[in-house]
Amino acid sequence: MASTLSLAPRKRQHILTIAGSDSGGGAGIQADLKTIEAFGCYGSSVLTGLTAQNTKGVQAVHEVPTDFVIKQFRSVLSDEPPACIKLGMLTNASIIRALAAELKDLDTINVLDPVMISTSGHTLLPEDAIEALKDLYPSIDYFTPNIPEAIRLSGFSPKSSSSSDLTLREMVTLAKETNIKTGAFTVLLKGGHASVSREEVLAYKGQFPILWEEGDEESDAIEVLSLYKKYTQIPEHQKGLVVDILVNQGEIQAMYVGKKVDSKNTHGTGCTLSTAIACAYATESREGPGDWNFRMFKRAISYTQSAIASSFPFGQGHGPLNHGHLSVKRALPPPTKHNPHPFLSHLIQSNLPLWNSYVKHPFVVQLGKGTLPRECFEHYIKQDYHYLKHYARAHALGAYKANSFVDIKAFTDIAGHIARESEMHVSYCESFGISLKELEAAPEASPCAAYARYVIDIGTQGDILDLYMAVASCLVGYGEVGLWLKSQVEKGEAKLEGNLYKRWMEDYSGADFLRAVERGIENLERRVAEDPPNEARLARLTAIWHECVRLESAFWDMGLNLIK
Amino acid sequence: MASTLSLAPRKRQHILTIAGSDSGGGAGIQADLKTIEAFGCYGSSVLTGLTAQNTKGVQAVHEVPTDFVIKQFRSVLSDEPPACIKLGMLTNASIIRALAAELKDLDTINVLDPVMISTSGHTLLPEDAIEALKDLYPSIDYFTPNIPEAIRLSGFSPKSSSSSDLTLREMVTLAKETNIKTGAFTVLLKGGHASVSREEVLAYKGQFPILWEEGDEESDAIEVLSLYKKYTQIPEHQKGLVVDILVNQGEIQAMYVGKKVDSKNTHGTGCTLSTAIACAYATESREGPGDWNFRMFKRAISYTQSAIASSFPFGQGHGPLNHGHLSVKRALPPPTKHNPHPFLSHLIQSNLPLWNSYVKHPFVVQLGKGTLPRECFEHYIKQDYHYLKHYARAHALGAYKANSFVDIKAFTDIAGHIARESEMHVSYCESFGISLKELEAAPEASPCAAYARYVIDIGTQGDILDLYMAVASCLVGYGEVGLWLKSQVEKGEAKLEGNLYKRWMEDYSGADFLRAVERGIENLERRVAEDPPNEARLARLTAIWHECVRLESAFWDMGLNLIK
Repeated sequence: MASTLSLAPRKRQHILTIAGSDSGGGAGIQADLKTIEAFGCYGSSVLTGLTAQNTKGVQAVHEVPTDFVIKQFRSVLSDEPPACIKLGMLTNASIIRALAAELKDLDTINVLDPVMISTSGHTLLPEDAIEALKDLYPSIDYFTPNIPEAIRLSGFSPKSSSSSDLTLREMVTLAKETNIKTGAFTVLLKGGHASVSREEVLAYKGQFPILWEEGDEESDAIEVLSLYKKYTQIPEHQKGLVVDILVNQGEIQAMYVGKKVDSKNTHGTGCTLSTAIACAYATESREGPGDWNFRMFKRAISYTQSAIASSFPFGQGHGPLNHGHLSVKRALPPPTKHNPHPFLSHLIQSNLPLWNSYVKHPFVVQLGKGTLPRECFEHYIKQDYHYLKHYARAHALGAYKANSFVDIKAFTDIAGHIARESEMHVSYCESFGISLKELEAAPEASPCAAYARYVIDIGTQGDILDLYMAVASCLVGYGEVGLWLKSQVEKGEAKLEGNLYKRWMEDYSGADFLRAVERGIENLERRVAEDPPNEARLARLTAIWHECVRLESAFWDMGLNLIK
Repeated sequence: MASTLSLAPRKRQHILTIAGSDSGGGAGIQADLKTIEAFGCYGSSVLTGLTAQNTKGVQAVHEVPTDFVIKQFRSVLSDEPPACIKLGMLTNASIIRALAAELKDLDTINVLDPVMISTSGHTLLPEDAIEALKDLYPSIDYFTPNIPEAIRLSGFSPKSSSSSDLTLREMVTLAKETNIKTGAFTVLLKGGHASVSREEVLAYKGQFPILWEEGDEESDAIEVLSLYKKYTQIPEHQKGLVVDILVNQGEIQAMYVGKKVDSKNTHGTGCTLSTAIACAYATESREGPGDWNFRMFKRAISYTQSAIASSFPFGQGHGPLNHGHLSVKRALPPPTKHNPHPFLSHLIQSNLPLWNSYVKHPFVVQLGKGTLPRECFEHYIKQDYHYLKHYARAHALGAYKANSFVDIKAFTDIAGHIARESEMHVSYCESFGISLKELEAAPEASPCAAYARYVIDIGTQGDILDLYMAVASCLVGYGEVGLWLKSQVEKGEAKLEGNLYKRWMEDYSGADFLRAVERGIENLERRVAEDPPNEARLARLTAIWHECVRLESAFWDMGLNLIK
C-alpha cells in the first residue's frame, strides 16, 4: 500500500506489417492490425497492394507502385524502429526486390508469410515474384509457408498430389527441404492442410520437443475433460491431428500438435499467425521455464486457434477470425494526469444526488452554521463511538483478509490508529459532559447498527476489494464534509468562531485527516488500476458504495431526528 | 448455477470505414480499425488513398482510382451490411461523387469526418473536392468538422482570424451555420481548436443540456478530487475549457464540456472520434436514463479524450493515441466447442506432474490393484469422515457468501447432500468394523486438518470464486481417480473382482458422482467465462488450486504412511 500510483504510460512494442489490404477486414493488414492490437502492441503498415475482397473471394487487385511502397517503408522506419516486421502479400517481383534491398542493411527481425494463394483460391503472387523471393530470404528470421507453398518453394515432390494426403514423414522432409532451399533462418511449416495420426507423431518421441495442445505429457490424458477424451477417443492410427513443424538450419526443433478446429471461418489465418509470431517475438518474456522461442510459437499458434474457434458469423463465405477474443473491456479508463481518479470519479458521479444528500446533509449544514441542537449532536457523537469500534474491527478484518505483510501492516496501522483516536473521541465527548461509561452503555441505535454491521458483513462475505469499498465512503465523505464546510466558512455560509462544533469542523478539514483521506483515495485507485474491474465487477463495487453512502446519510438523519 | 454455459459466439457489430491509409498507424483506417477493435465491433475498410506518413508529417500521397474505390465498397456491401459507415479522407472530387451516388440509394447510417488538413498541416482535400462534398451531405447522419473546417464549409466569418480566439457565442453560430449550409442531419462541431471560459458556458445554462466531463451537476464541485479542484481553481472568466457543440436542424441540442488534455500526441484524433461515434451508435443501449444519442456522443468523446490522455511515447512528432486503453487481456481464451474447458485445462496443465502425483498416487494405484493394506485404508477413511464435515461446512460458507437465492440453494443443496452422504460413509465404515463413535473420536490427523482448514480459511479470506477454487480439486480429482481406475481395470492394471475396495472404486466412477463432477466443472467454467480473470487474478486462483492438489496428495500420503 505504500507505493504510489504510476501514471506513466506504458510503451507498446512497435510491429510493422508490410502487406496487402483486404477490404473485407478479415485478412491482410486489417487482420494484422487487429492481431497487433490483441497482443497489446502498436501497429503500423506499409501497403503493397489493395484488394476488393470479401468472405466470398477476391474481386479485384490494385497494385501499389514500388516507389510508393518504399516511400511508406522509409517514412515508418525513419520515425520509430519496429521491434519486428511482418511481411505478407508482396504483390510482385519489383516490390519484393526493392524491399529486399531495403532490409539487407537493416538488422530488424523479419517474419515472412509467403502469401501466394488466397483462402478462396485467388493467385496473389506471380511466378517471377516467387523467383524474386530468393533475394528476400537472407533477411528472413521466421518463415511460415503452408504445405502447398512449401512444396512450390522447395521443389519437394510428395507421393500424393493432394496436400491432405501427406504423411508426417513427408512433412518433416518438406520442412527441412524448405529451410535448406530458401535459406530462411527458421521455418515453421504450417500443417493445416494435412491430417496426421497420433501414431505418426509418437514415432518422433524423444527426438525433439513435441508440444501438445493439451499439455506436454501427452501420454497422461485427463479423463474428466472432454478435450482430452476427444483425443483418446481417436484411435492412435487414425488421422485427425494438425502438426506444425519448426526447423532451423535443416534440423527439426519442435512439433506443435493439436486437433483441427472445425470451422469455415478461416479467412486470414495465415496473416494472423505470422503477425502473432511477430507480436509474440516482441512480447514473450525471455525468462521462465524452457526455451522462450518454443513458448513464443506456442502462444502464436494457440492465439490463432482460439481466434478461429471463437469466430462469429460474418459474411456469406469463409468468415474472419475473432481477433479480439482475448480482450475484455475495462469498465474504467486507466488513471492519467488528466484524470488521476477515474474510479472515485465514477463512484461519485454514478449518483451525484445521493452523494450530495450525504455530504451536504441538513445535519452538516446546521453543524456548520452552529444551529444544530446540542442533543442531536450528542446523540450522533455517542453513536459515532460505537461506529468507530466497528470501523476499527473492519480494518482488522482487512488485515485478516490480506495476503502480504505490507497489507497486514497497513490495515493494522489504521485499526490501531482508530483505537488510539477513540481516546480523543472520549475526551471530546467529556467536553460535552458525556462520560466513557455513558458512551459504552448507550444502546446501538438501528441506523448505526445497520451501517456498521453492513460494513463488517460485506467484508466477511466478499474479498479484500469489497471490504476496501465498504470502508471508503466514510473516509472520503468526512474529508469532503470537512473541506466543504471550510469553503462554506470562506463564503460566509458557515462559521467557526462561536460555533459549538468548531473543533469537530477543524478536525475533519485538518491536514492530518486530509492526508489520511488522500492516502485512502490513492490506495483505492491503485488497487483498481492494477486489477481493472470489468462491467459486472464495477457494478457490484458501485452497489456497495451506494449502500454505504445511503447508510451514512441515514446516520446523519439519526442524529438530527434522534432516532433510536 | 442452473444455466449451462453458452458457447455460441457473440456477433460483432460491423463498422465500415472509408478513408485513407496512414503508414505510421496513427490516423486513417489504421486509427479507425484500432478504434473499432476497442469498441468490440468488427472493422472493414475501403481505401481511398494511401499516404507515406509518420508522426512528423505526410511525405507522399497515392490516390486510389475511383473505380477501385467503388469495387471495394460494393465488395463489402454485397457481403455483409454494416451497422454504420464512417467516411474520412476521401482524396478527390471524383471519389466523393462516386460514393455519394452509391450511398444515395442505401439506408445506411453514415458519419462523415471532413478530413481536409492533416494535424501536421498537409492539405488532404483539394478545392473541387470540397465542392463535391455537397453531393454527399444529404446522406450524412453525423458530421464532425473541427473549427477551421466548419469555417471553410459554412462561410461564417469570426471576428478573429485565429480559431483559438473564437468566443463560444461565435462557435454556437458557426455550428448552426454549418448544419444549415451543409444540410448534414446532425453536426458535432469539435471545439478543440478554441479555448472557452466557464462563464461563457454557464451563460447557456437551462437552454439545452450541458454535459460536463466531471458529471452533470457542474455547480456541485467535489472538493476531495483534484479533477474537480482543477475546474474550480480556474476562475470562471478564464479560458481553458474545450466545448463540442451538437446541432440538429439548426438547433443546438447539447454542449460537451471538458478540460483540454495536455498532450502532443493528438495525431489521428479526428479519425478516432468520428469512428468512435460510429461504434457508439452501433453499440449504445437504446434503453437507460436520458437520451441515448447524448450518451453515445459522450461515450465517443470520453473514449477519445482518455485515448489522448493515456497515450505513450511513439515517434518523433505528434504521436498516436492509445486506442487500446480500455482493453485488458483475459488470461484465458473463452470456452469454445473446440476447447469447452479452458479454465480447468489451464489449471491441470499448469502443473501436470503435481496433478498426476495426486490422481495417480501410490495409494490410488495400490487401492486399484487391491494391494493397499487395510489399516492404511481404514486410517484414510476415518480421516475422510472429518474432511467431509469440513467440506460440507465450506459449502455452507459458500451459501453465506452468495448474493442470490440461486447460489444459496446450489450451495446448501451440496452441503445437505454431503451431510446425507455422511450416513453412507458411516455405514461403509461399519462394513470395515469402524463404528460412528470411533469415527467421531478419531483425532484429526495433521494432513487432514491442514487441508480442511485451508479450504475454510481461503473461503473466509477471499470471495466466492476463491472458495469455488478451494473446493474444486477434491471434486474433480476424485472424478479423475474414479475414471482412471476404471480405465486401469479395462487395461488389466487394476481389478474390481475380489478387491476389498470395489465399492469405493465403483462409487467414484459411478454415474451419480460423475454427474456431480460435470456440474461442478460446468459451474466453474461458466463463472470464469462470465467474469474472465486477468493475469494477476488467474495466478491467485491457480495458486489455490496447486495448494489444494498438494494437500490432496498429502492426504493419500497420510493414509499410506499412517501419519497422525
